[in-house]
Amino acid sequence: MAASPVSTDVDFSKPGRQVGRLRVPRSRDDSGWGTELIPIVVVANGEGPTILLTAGNHGDEYEGQVTLLDLARTLQPGDVTGRVILLPAMHYPACAAGKRLSPIDGKDFNRCFPGDPFGTFGQVLAHYVDSVLLPMCDFQMDLHSGGTGMDILPSACGHALDDPEMMRRTLDMADAFGAPITMVLVEVNAGPTLLAQAERRGIVALSSELGGGGRLNPENLVITQRGARNVLRHAGVLTGTPQVGPYGPSRRMTIPDLAHYVFAPHDGIWEAADPLGAMVAKGAPAGRLHLTEDPDRHAIPLNYAADGLLWCARFAGRVRAGDPVAVIARDL
Amino acid sequence: MAASPVSTDVDFSKPGRQVGRLRVPRSRDDSGWGTELIPIVVVANGEGPTILLTAGNHGDEYEGQVTLLDLARTLQPGDVTGRVILLPAMHYPACAAGKRLSPIDGKDFNRCFPGDPFGTFGQVLAHYVDSVLLPMCDFQMDLHSGGTGMDILPSACGHALDDPEMMRRTLDMADAFGAPITMVLVEVNAGPTLLAQAERRGIVALSSELGGGGRLNPENLVITQRGARNVLRHAGVLTGTPQVGPYGPSRRMTIPDLAHYVFAPHDGIWEAADPLGAMVAKGAPAGRLHLTEDPDRHAIPLNYAADGLLWCARFAGRVRAGDPVAVIARDL
Amino acid sequence: MAASPVSTDVDFSKPGRQVGRLRVPRSRDDSGWGTELIPIVVVANGEGPTILLTAGNHGDEYEGQVTLLDLARTLQPGDVTGRVILLPAMHYPACAAGKRLSPIDGKDFNRCFPGDPFGTFGQVLAHYVDSVLLPMCDFQMDLHSGGTGMDILPSACGHALDDPEMMRRTLDMADAFGAPITMVLVEVNAGPTLLAQAERRGIVALSSELGGGGRLNPENLVITQRGARNVLRHAGVLTGTPQVGPYGPSRRMTIPDLAHYVFAPHDGIWEAADPLGAMVAKGAPAGRLHLTEDPDRHAIPLNYAADGLLWCARFAGRVRAGDPVAVIARDL
Amino acid sequence: MAASPVSTDVDFSKPGRQVGRLRVPRSRDDSGWGTELIPIVVVANGEGPTILLTAGNHGDEYEGQVTLLDLARTLQPGDVTGRVILLPAMHYPACAAGKRLSPIDGKDFNRCFPGDPFGTFGQVLAHYVDSVLLPMCDFQMDLHSGGTGMDILPSACGHALDDPEMMRRTLDMADAFGAPITMVLVEVNAGPTLLAQAERRGIVALSSELGGGGRLNPENLVITQRGARNVLRHAGVLTGTPQVGPYGPSRRMTIPDLAHYVFAPHDGIWEAADPLGAMVAKGAPAGRLHLTEDPDRHAIPLNYAADGLLWCARFAGRVRAGDPVAVIARDL
Amino acid sequence: MAASPVSTDVDFSKPGRQVGRLRVPRSRDDSGWGTELIPIVVVANGEGPTILLTAGNHGDEYEGQVTLLDLARTLQPGDVTGRVILLPAMHYPACAAGKRLSPIDGKDFNRCFPGDPFGTFGQVLAHYVDSVLLPMCDFQMDLHSGGTGMDILPSACGHALDDPEMMRRTLDMADAFGAPITMVLVEVNAGPTLLAQAERRGIVALSSELGGGGRLNPENLVITQRGARNVLRHAGVLTGTPQVGPYGPSRRMTIPDLAHYVFAPHDGIWEAADPLGAMVAKGAPAGRLHLTEDPDRHAIPLNYAADGLLWCARFAGRVRAGDPVAVIARDL
Amino acid sequence: MAASPVSTDVDFSKPGRQVGRLRVPRSRDDSGWGTELIPIVVVANGEGPTILLTAGNHGDEYEGQVTLLDLARTLQPGDVTGRVILLPAMHYPACAAGKRLSPIDGKDFNRCFPGDPFGTFGQVLAHYVDSVLLPMCDFQMDLHSGGTGMDILPSACGHALDDPEMMRRTLDMADAFGAPITMVLVEVNAGPTLLAQAERRGIVALSSELGGGGRLNPENLVITQRGARNVLRHAGVLTGTPQVGPYGPSRRMTIPDLAHYVFAPHDGIWEAADPLGAMVAKGAPAGRLHLTEDPDRHAIPLNYAADGLLWCARFAGRVRAGDPVAVIARDL
Repeated sequence: MAASPVSTDVDFSKPGRQVGRLRVPRSRDDSGWGTELIPIVVVANGEGPTILLTAGNHGDEYEGQVTLLDLARTLQPGDVTGRVILLPAMHYPACAAGKRLSPIDGKDFNRCFPGDPFGTFGQVLAHYVDSVLLPMCDFQMDLHSGGTGMDILPSACGHALDDPEMMRRTLDMADAFGAPITMVLVEVNAGPTLLAQAERRGIVALSSELGGGGRLNPENLVITQRGARNVLRHAGVLTGTPQVGPYGPSRRMTIPDLAHYVFAPHDGIWEAADPLGAMVAKGAPAGRLHLTEDPDRHAIPLNYAADGLLWCARFAGRVRAGDPVAVIARDL
Repeated sequence: MAASPVSTDVDFSKPGRQVGRLRVPRSRDDSGWGTELIPIVVVANGEGPTILLTAGNHGDEYEGQVTLLDLARTLQPGDVTGRVILLPAMHYPACAAGKRLSPIDGKDFNRCFPGDPFGTFGQVLAHYVDSVLLPMCDFQMDLHSGGTGMDILPSACGHALDDPEMMRRTLDMADAFGAPITMVLVEVNAGPTLLAQAERRGIVALSSELGGGGRLNPENLVITQRGARNVLRHAGVLTGTPQVGPYGPSRRMTIPDLAHYVFAPHDGIWEAADPLGAMVAKGAPAGRLHLTEDPDRHAIPLNYAADGLLWCARFAGRVRAGDPVAVIARDL
Repeated sequence: MAASPVSTDVDFSKPGRQVGRLRVPRSRDDSGWGTELIPIVVVANGEGPTILLTAGNHGDEYEGQVTLLDLARTLQPGDVTGRVILLPAMHYPACAAGKRLSPIDGKDFNRCFPGDPFGTFGQVLAHYVDSVLLPMCDFQMDLHSGGTGMDILPSACGHALDDPEMMRRTLDMADAFGAPITMVLVEVNAGPTLLAQAERRGIVALSSELGGGGRLNPENLVITQRGARNVLRHAGVLTGTPQVGPYGPSRRMTIPDLAHYVFAPHDGIWEAADPLGAMVAKGAPAGRLHLTEDPDRHAIPLNYAADGLLWCARFAGRVRAGDPVAVIARDL
Repeated sequence: MAASPVSTDVDFSKPGRQVGRLRVPRSRDDSGWGTELIPIVVVANGEGPTILLTAGNHGDEYEGQVTLLDLARTLQPGDVTGRVILLPAMHYPACAAGKRLSPIDGKDFNRCFPGDPFGTFGQVLAHYVDSVLLPMCDFQMDLHSGGTGMDILPSACGHALDDPEMMRRTLDMADAFGAPITMVLVEVNAGPTLLAQAERRGIVALSSELGGGGRLNPENLVITQRGARNVLRHAGVLTGTPQVGPYGPSRRMTIPDLAHYVFAPHDGIWEAADPLGAMVAKGAPAGRLHLTEDPDRHAIPLNYAADGLLWCARFAGRVRAGDPVAVIARDL
Repeated sequence: MAASPVSTDVDFSKPGRQVGRLRVPRSRDDSGWGTELIPIVVVANGEGPTILLTAGNHGDEYEGQVTLLDLARTLQPGDVTGRVILLPAMHYPACAAGKRLSPIDGKDFNRCFPGDPFGTFGQVLAHYVDSVLLPMCDFQMDLHSGGTGMDILPSACGHALDDPEMMRRTLDMADAFGAPITMVLVEVNAGPTLLAQAERRGIVALSSELGGGGRLNPENLVITQRGARNVLRHAGVLTGTPQVGPYGPSRRMTIPDLAHYVFAPHDGIWEAADPLGAMVAKGAPAGRLHLTEDPDRHAIPLNYAADGLLWCARFAGRVRAGDPVAVIARDL
Repeated sequence: MAASPVSTDVDFSKPGRQVGRLRVPRSRDDSGWGTELIPIVVVANGEGPTILLTAGNHGDEYEGQVTLLDLARTLQPGDVTGRVILLPAMHYPACAAGKRLSPIDGKDFNRCFPGDPFGTFGQVLAHYVDSVLLPMCDFQMDLHSGGTGMDILPSACGHALDDPEMMRRTLDMADAFGAPITMVLVEVNAGPTLLAQAERRGIVALSSELGGGGRLNPENLVITQRGARNVLRHAGVLTGTPQVGPYGPSRRMTIPDLAHYVFAPHDGIWEAADPLGAMVAKGAPAGRLHLTEDPDRHAIPLNYAADGLLWCARFAGRVRAGDPVAVIARDL
């Protein structure tokens, strides 16, 4: 594989605090050698582990972006043992647009890993993150929320891993993050995500879900800010021990199978029966799907196909056929 | 002005319940004589007033759409004295897209009145509503919410009118609707709205704000459902008297001037200091605007320039320069 | 109303054959003073009437375009008494794209009359045709076919006119054109068409339907070529009398009301029961609408609501809700 | 290669009739975990071969879609020995749009094989068809027509294969399908098609051409309906022997080389000299290309460069430089 | 006509220097009450005339924008008698894009006057400039250059006016501006420009052409900076007399008719025979148009149809049919 | 790797002059088997080397296109020993649009090598150039200019190569071309370019920069025309020795590192301190970046970070954050 065409004014081997940019080539009609600038902050001091914290993988998820911007503005070398690399708006073009998908290549950046140095903008950037940044890391956490369409209970998220030692270290880090929930995912489509790529490189890695609806949720912002510092403490980069939130230790849960999802069978307006966080029962009404085009048709009732906690709920009122409207979690 | 090219299979002079469509011409490359279908329901019985209830003026405002769909499915001729005309998804193309603006002509439908029979899709439809439907009406209410970008306290909205009798009748209708707030607007840009057009035709008319954030808010749905039946009772179309909500009678408020707005001076992520509905003080912090592109710049603090109730708040996390992030209301 | 900004290198007062261009301003990012070129041919000789023949009002209707291109290449001043103005590709940008709608402003050019010298591209061009070309004319014929979506029996088309003398002169011209059918339209939405505009200026005017499906129909091309020369003869611009087609004199028909249309109530694939030109009966099956999204739902049967001749049929297989799939004509 | 992220509610190992959906991930700005739904029908009974019939590879080809929808609605387990898998609208987004190319990724789905589980929408779907469905199959037929641009004589199509046994089995299946023509293709660009991919997997496979022009041709629908049942009989999944059409056994033909194509050298309107199905001679006029932009230029005459049957003809009137306007077939 | 919906934080009646914004409503899907911000600077002191200087009418014309930004940053109330209103980036959305046309409504802003308070973004802004700003003004100058496509000799531009007193005052102001050339235009399409609108309001008004090619020309920037201060002196707003450039007094010229234009008859690459500013002769070669699509066709030679000064030349290499490639000026 | 689906009517093995087309498949909605035509000219005679000259890799770079069109029209077999292959508009769709990027797939064609026969349009074409044309070649030169955004001193460009013999042969060819400058590039992102691909195939290869600004620079056209014939002479395909330009032998230069670039840190208007070709000093002002959105902010001064020759300068006035505005070259 060829070298990355991405360059940066940050020197990863230098101690101290550096605020710089990744310069990612993007040829425009009026600027053949134009580049997009991705803000990057490195704070390094002495010997110690390297941790990469990322937000803005999807542009419409804000708790992580604000948390890392605050960290980027305040973290000082004297606070740190080792190295912290912060990408508060990793997929900057989507962040600037406030959208999930790339305004440049239309892609979901979290389906672009491990990337391609000759590929589209997102693939070039993903390749840099994978081939240049990840090899420096001991720990990685990619801060997500539910985006415009979904609302999700605040959770650290890891994959169920075959290696028990890696599984244990991942769960330890999730415990440290200290969200109300730790979600252990058994995902079919995890391959092209940053989380899966970090795992493939043997890095202790997490992602998260910290709200959604396209808004900055103030309660979840507090959880994210506490959690980000907690993982730095857990990694040994900051001193001190992780703080426990007012809700106590994180509850480990999982989503066993597709029966724990409710999907909309038609386009329509979704009227949920329960609020996010409700305990729901198999067979109970999940809500009604209103068919706008025909006031003579009854709203379609949908029911849950599993018991559990309403972990993730459709936020936006309008849904399209195939959209998930509810995801149920079970204790692990 | 020429006649409208819109046709319908509903006969407005007929008693009983009819579910039909407005057929609005829309020439496509593959269907020169194609039409868009707008669902319409008419329920008429005996002599009495005519009231037009509309929702889906903006496609991403759901409380009104669901309320009118439910009414459209349940209202029977025997319930009614006079005539109810329901457009649960008035600007249907935007409703189907779940967007504020038209996917056909890019326009905000509520800036298209009084319309034009030779104009764009939205202008043709607005002209039909204005020239065919409004002349039949004694009362009109256009149900809005705050849309994807804003969240707004549930309110009936009317304009400050020069004619004291019309003002009184408008406030009576708002009292009947019974939202927590009645907002009396002094608007500069009201000209091209449906509300202003109904007022110009001498119809007792209201609009509303009933939540926002691009979601269907369950509490506000209850307010809307009660309110819609209340105005039918107030108009004398349904029997009975309007019901008062658990919050008591509607509080009359206004927005005196532009000093009651806080606008974002740059693009960024908005972190509000207060929740919607807070009482705020002139000079107090309204929130911080985070500038994603430069982790070395401090977040910009914005302050309120007036005292009052935080009636409307930016919902979406990402804002652009020029977006309102807070609107303060004062008691009338 | 201001003067047209359109210029031309053709001198309408000059005898002889001129091939030129209308130069219609179209500002582009890379050419602020750029113009679009519309081919125009004028053949004039001696004293006599002026007739304007136009095709390519819609870009995907070809019988008229080819007929007028052939006329434009072959008509010589010595053949003519009076003046023939030919616009074989009147709305040239749509013709070059092979589309009904404008690739510049998205408009249906035949909904742009009488136009606006400060408006969009189509409105500026329509204003020129109306304010500069029509005032020179005694006769006008605008050659249409059914376009990509529809297939239509070859017909000259005129409006039912209040003035009996104009009605008679219009029907005389249609008889001369000599299509199998003369359609006398009672249109709601005729206002913004070239035909209606020509009528408002007191010009004897026709349009036509000469096939469709986005193809060049060879049988209908023959009818169009004969018809175009026939109207020149009828106007006295060419010598000789109009030729009658092998099918005999034109049959006068009309479409009395909306009951003579069958519209698709859903998106789907249209399977017609009858070929174009069939005699059909009220209540008989018009065809089936196949709903692609659900193989468990039966195809929706649609029936005719009137007796008559299947004058116009949906051509393209895929239809959208609101598209006409059949139009029935009755003898006048 | 990674596993497919596509899931389905159909259980391919279960006997009986199932109507379900393929759920293909498609991240939208407002639905990060959204999916597109592809209708699938499986009818299975007892031991026997598996045959996969597909239509809607291109969305604007309708004979196959309607045929498979009818089969999907009517085929019962008791009719079947073995297993029939039906995808009546395989590339559903293009079918819903009535377009050849994908409205999602702009690709021609039949140039996406063997696909990529991390690729674009079409590549993900192609990868599922290839990696999950094809390995179950003994026979496959992908039903095409000529689409919007071309009209083609009804034909079963297979490739000239190196393995004589596979060639024989392919021709046997084509004989069974019983279209008027069996086209044996020697294609340069066959690599990324479903047909080529099925062949690479050792499946007896055919595609077809069954009309075109963007319409549903009723004569060709009959041929397709008969043919689809014939291949089921030939495979032994339905009982009985294939029925021969009124035109007798299929005629085996081929297109020897590029000299059998006529291509448009310019943009223009194509006026063909011959109807589809004509016998044509090398050097004879194929038609005239009218250049709309200049009424002074003669139409460009094009001639055939080979003798044979006019198997495929340009349907749409407007052509662009590089478009084929005629394809000549020779008996094998 | 209704009042403008545009507001501003600048108080035009206040003395001193104010830097503010025009707030122009622009409804977005995610911000229904969003506004676009147009920078405005007012510097006022004592009694005296009002002059409005504007640049960025077209976004890709830079000499005026930089000149007015410099003025906006440096002009102090003590320098001024009367009032200077500066719009350095009048059509800000196009300026931010570096394009001639609006990225919002696609319009050329200088074809939007007198505007419409209910119209598109450009029409709303034009209406504000016309109905609010122009009535305050005694003098107006709108600074243009040739944009991306054209290169033009530095010139002040006015219209030939019927009123001899207004003509004299206009020429006096042009003399004061002191560009090498003063162009007196006889324009057909001047109606919808800001210059024509200012003239209709009886204001002494000029526009300019000051280079082009989409670049900031340093020599022309000097001319513009001198000229802008000169017109302030001429108006009496700044003290002192206008400075004469090193090229001496302005030369008055005109473009008598369309014969002074050379237009490209085809798409191609334009190779000019002469540099901008050359004296050219009727019948001499203007250049060659290279037809990229066919290396066998000779480049098309074009000749001048008039004598004079090559005042405006095509800059961009690629031209489309209908683009002007040369404009010849004559001494008045 | 599969065979290319591109075909051509040119026979590369035939002597004489042939003007033909590459036929590159491009499926359109209305032409499934449509192709794009790329003009190609081959002039061959006797035994000798093969040289491929290409222009129009980027559509908005004109000196090479015009030079090769002139060569294509004039070069005769009798002039040649060996074979000359000319692609005057290699990436024809971009050339026809006058844009750098592809109007078909949005890609920069010079980032598409070595291509993919199943990929996007640009990848398919690149694969043909690489797999079919390059293997025939002894020499290759790809003629570039700076495009719309940049202006660059006329230069032949080669890479610093590890193989000293290839380096020497490359420099010999550059000396022969005889531009004022020979630029020896040390590029990070060269991988996907045609130049790098030709080098990987062991061909003596150059590219060039010959002006820019989106215009055809007449002085640079002369250099290009002389240079193109010079490389033909150098290769031995034409007789005679390369001509030296009036500026003498080519000066060998390089760009040592990123410190020789000045990048814009914000969007704005760039006002350069120096003209292209100036000698500049480290620390000296490179220019000012004007921030249009805020007339109260000072223009941002940017300085050079290296001494040398201003080899490449931003041409377009408007820049975006990340755009290079100056590139400094050093003598080798």
